[in-house]
Amino acid sequence: MGIAMVEWFDDLKLGMRFISEKMTVTKDDILRFAAEFDPQPFHLDDEAAKHTMLGGLSASGWHTAAIAMRLAITAKPFGPHPLLGAGVDELRWMKPVRPGDTLHLEGEVVDLIPSKTKPQGIARVKWIAYNQKGEAVYTFNPIAIVPRRPA
Amino acid sequence: MGIAMVEWFDDLKLGMRFISEKMTVTKDDILRFAAEFDPQPFHLDDEAAKHTMLGGLSASGWHTAAIAMRLAITAKPFGPHPLLGAGVDELRWMKPVRPGDTLHLEGEVVDLIPSKTKPQGIARVKWIAYNQKGEAVYTFNPIAIVPRRPA
Repeated sequence: MGIAMVEWFDDLKLGMRFISEKMTVTKDDILRFAAEFDPQPFHLDDEAAKHTMLGGLSASGWHTAAIAMRLAITAKPFGPHPLLGAGVDELRWMKPVRPGDTLHLEGEVVDLIPSKTKPQGIARVKWIAYNQKGEAVYTFNPIAIVPRRPA
Repeated sequence: MGIAMVEWFDDLKLGMRFISEKMTVTKDDILRFAAEFDPQPFHLDDEAAKHTMLGGLSASGWHTAAIAMRLAITAKPFGPHPLLGAGVDELRWMKPVRPGDTLHLEGEVVDLIPSKTKPQGIARVKWIAYNQKGEAVYTFNPIAIVPRRPA
């Protein structure tokens, strides 16, 4: 695989792929996030979690989403430009994220829509988060705004 | 507006509406979340944020999403049942969330799809988060799984 230098919207091509760093999610991380944002038994308590649809303690889906944001930044898909989104489509949680899981993200450019009025474009990257077993656990497709190369 | 007691999927009706508690987002909350999950200048530093597309410090969109999860729980849309989702569609950030903003959520049942094989259904609630000025800042439409009333 060659390395393409991406600096502006114009440098992105359909099918271009990105890979992130890795991050391990601890039980403490899971409990702390859940206590603040998603205080439900399957995210807070081992014993209670065993008796739920998730079959054991797992990270809040929004915790996974937040970790994926952090990982996407490390993939630097738009070179020096920030990751700024208007929204997300096709957000899906496929498998629970468990204490001790190590996640990384892989992304692929699936659509590129230049603005007709502003010096920017919308870049759609479909991201998939994998755990250490290679299982896809989460996917999302943000609407990212990336500047065009100045004339 | 009457109060409907929701206990099972079967009690939900199209057009049924829910309202959450309120939550105020502090500058410290914004900086703390951003440092952990979305360390970009417009979420981390007042001065740097002024010169970005967001025009000032604002919460990570994933922070807003996490707060919305917390608020959705307070709305108890499915009575005693948890909020467990397979994914989300139509997630959009419409306006920045600023330090000191107070958010609440309003939700409306927009689709109800009983499972053909399991004693449950998919309930689609379109949620909108409003700030203290009544401006819609964020919306999402989760795919929630809710048990049916036992026969």
